[in-house]
Amino acid sequence: MKLDQLYKSLLIPNTTKLALVVLDGLGDIAVEENGFKTPLEAAKTPNLDALTKHAALGRMTPVAPGITPGSGPGHLGLFGYDPLEFEVGRGVIEALGLGLDLQPGDVAARANFCTLAPKGIVTDRRAGRIDTKVCEAQVEILQKKIKKIGDTQVIIKAGKGHRFVVLLRGKGLEGPLTDSDPHREGLPIATVKPVKKTAKSTKAAKVVAEFYKQALPLLKNCKPANGFLLRGIAHQPKIETFEERYGLKAAAIAIYPMYKGLAQLVGMKKIEGPQTVKEEFAAAADALKSFDYVFVHVKGTDMHGEDGNFAGKVAAIEEADAALGLLMAAQPAVIAVTGDHSTPCPIKGHSWHPQPVLLYSDYSGWDGMDRFTERAANHGSLGTFDAKFLMRLMQANAKRFDKFGA
Amino acid sequence: MKLDQLYKSLLIPNTTKLALVVLDGLGDIAVEENGFKTPLEAAKTPNLDALTKHAALGRMTPVAPGITPGSGPGHLGLFGYDPLEFEVGRGVIEALGLGLDLQPGDVAARANFCTLAPKGIVTDRRAGRIDTKVCEAQVEILQKKIKKIGDTQVIIKAGKGHRFVVLLRGKGLEGPLTDSDPHREGLPIATVKPVKKTAKSTKAAKVVAEFYKQALPLLKNCKPANGFLLRGIAHQPKIETFEERYGLKAAAIAIYPMYKGLAQLVGMKKIEGPQTVKEEFAAAADALKSFDYVFVHVKGTDMHGEDGNFAGKVAAIEEADAALGLLMAAQPAVIAVTGDHSTPCPIKGHSWHPQPVLLYSDYSGWDGMDRFTERAANHGSLGTFDAKFLMRLMQANAKRFDKFGA
Repeated sequence: MKLDQLYKSLLIPNTTKLALVVLDGLGDIAVEENGFKTPLEAAKTPNLDALTKHAALGRMTPVAPGITPGSGPGHLGLFGYDPLEFEVGRGVIEALGLGLDLQPGDVAARANFCTLAPKGIVTDRRAGRIDTKVCEAQVEILQKKIKKIGDTQVIIKAGKGHRFVVLLRGKGLEGPLTDSDPHREGLPIATVKPVKKTAKSTKAAKVVAEFYKQALPLLKNCKPANGFLLRGIAHQPKIETFEERYGLKAAAIAIYPMYKGLAQLVGMKKIEGPQTVKEEFAAAADALKSFDYVFVHVKGTDMHGEDGNFAGKVAAIEEADAALGLLMAAQPAVIAVTGDHSTPCPIKGHSWHPQPVLLYSDYSGWDGMDRFTERAANHGSLGTFDAKFLMRLMQANAKRFDKFGA
Repeated sequence: MKLDQLYKSLLIPNTTKLALVVLDGLGDIAVEENGFKTPLEAAKTPNLDALTKHAALGRMTPVAPGITPGSGPGHLGLFGYDPLEFEVGRGVIEALGLGLDLQPGDVAARANFCTLAPKGIVTDRRAGRIDTKVCEAQVEILQKKIKKIGDTQVIIKAGKGHRFVVLLRGKGLEGPLTDSDPHREGLPIATVKPVKKTAKSTKAAKVVAEFYKQALPLLKNCKPANGFLLRGIAHQPKIETFEERYGLKAAAIAIYPMYKGLAQLVGMKKIEGPQTVKEEFAAAADALKSFDYVFVHVKGTDMHGEDGNFAGKVAAIEEADAALGLLMAAQPAVIAVTGDHSTPCPIKGHSWHPQPVLLYSDYSGWDGMDRFTERAANHGSLGTFDAKFLMRLMQANAKRFDKFGA
């Protein structure tokens, strides 16, 4: 039997509540420059300490050994979906990040303005990194004139600097398509083609070609951004929702649009409003009154990790720890605290290192550790496991699985 | 997506250097007769201790839980090839070890002279372990008279003592074939048959039969080695090279032929010359100037483990540790130290116990352990993982992988 099928066959209803707290990029490494301490070790975390004394610890491989995940695969894993099976295109993630409400079948592309020489040769792939305001003005020019191509709706949204997103919404479209970005200067804009030829991908490629035909003349007097390039053109895949897969009514709380988008992709309801970490946890506690499952996303840990800012990451952990008390007071049956991947300060970026995970419930037991740290997690009863199984452990701890076999 | 395919799609070029140090059969078990210590625990290892303070530790399952690997599967795993997917016959390994340059499709057999009674009964499977010189003389007799069988070229090469290799090179051949070795005395030479009947394996079996027909009469006056037995008859599979698979120019340093052969199978260049462990590590340091990756093989640990010689294994570890300094001085970006399997002294043979592994790089972090031992490795951040993933972790630590997904 396929494992996912087995899990589904064992589902039993319950009224237990589950909470997943993602401190983005939480995992770190202990190196000499930081006194051989990780931010989790250096931080003061009274609430996590209290949870740890009733929790199981472990580490999770986000995708596979040595693989550094982006936020997409990282979160899909935490939500219990195998990131190798459920791939979400770059364009889709970018669109979600800009807060576009995607629908299954929508085709999305990352776009950026570029500079074209008279004969159509790309001379600057980022158009001198134009200002966000210039980008917004040019996107408005395009969106005003181009609203539909045939029966396909065209939605264009500006991002930061030279970046924007093109979304195609219509019947019978699918990705992935090849990039129009030639990936180096001195070449013309490439023709977009289906990666795998189907009626739907052929139609999508035609719409893109027509979009270029209508859009380029509108930009011809724009300097320096008189062209644009498309990358990661993909459609939103149909993914089983949380309710279908786990029987859980799920809510998502995040400040950054991409994480709301990723949660919506698996059918979570996004709760709007919170602008601070404290507000996020207050909203999470509140959401547990009407939802079975809540996902809380904290961005600061990753941001400071990316900057290599150790003190900043420590502070972000301490801020989240303080706010965590609000969620703990709501007494969900299961609380998991982890990252979607590691963002070690010495690396200043996402990494492949297994992230630490804490799993608290009445049934998790105590692993004998006093604090939740990477090195304590190495000794935990959960061992090192694939992130996609965290959801299964949460379901089990929530007493939402029947016994398998007699 | 298939995982190997994903790894390949994420490859990025870099100039970082990688070193794999294999202390053959390194892993051991702590039992009462050895004062509940393993050789790694008993040995003085200042260089490994120094690495450990900047390293991640773990344990590796060589093939699958409970499976005791030979050197072939053990090393293929360390080289990043799933030993269940890439099977290499013993004959092929032996031929490579004798320095024969195999071509894909070549069929090779391990051979050894034996003693036959008048009616063809095997009375000594190793012909009284004749001298290498006698072996060489007899191989010359055979090779002089038998150069071709039909359109198949026959290459015969002497090894040590009673051992030699028979290589068949021609069109449309394949293995594996059953052994002609009856595996005990008192039986006649067995007829060689295809393990799986195909046109190619049938042809190979016929060539072997004809080889016996022509060769045995040539040996009839040789005493005591008037016959020979074939084992592990197999063809060289087509295996992706290190350069194709990882984008790494790789060199191999080993004293024993089999390990050079295994490395050549995956496209490593063997560096000839070193006769001592110290010379091996000096050659490794030197090879890093012109290669991206170097594999160093140390045999002593396994040899003493096979003999159940605890003190000998301790001494072999200490000898390797001292020489390791030469490689460390060359400052490769990544150093992994492990075994291809465990050869516990109390077992006097290879075993299934996960071998300890140390992974050192600027990005490995410190797991908080002071020494590299089996029991320290149990608490490491790498957890227990399949040996085939070590290469992936080395690539990641060498910053030779791009991020997966946005």
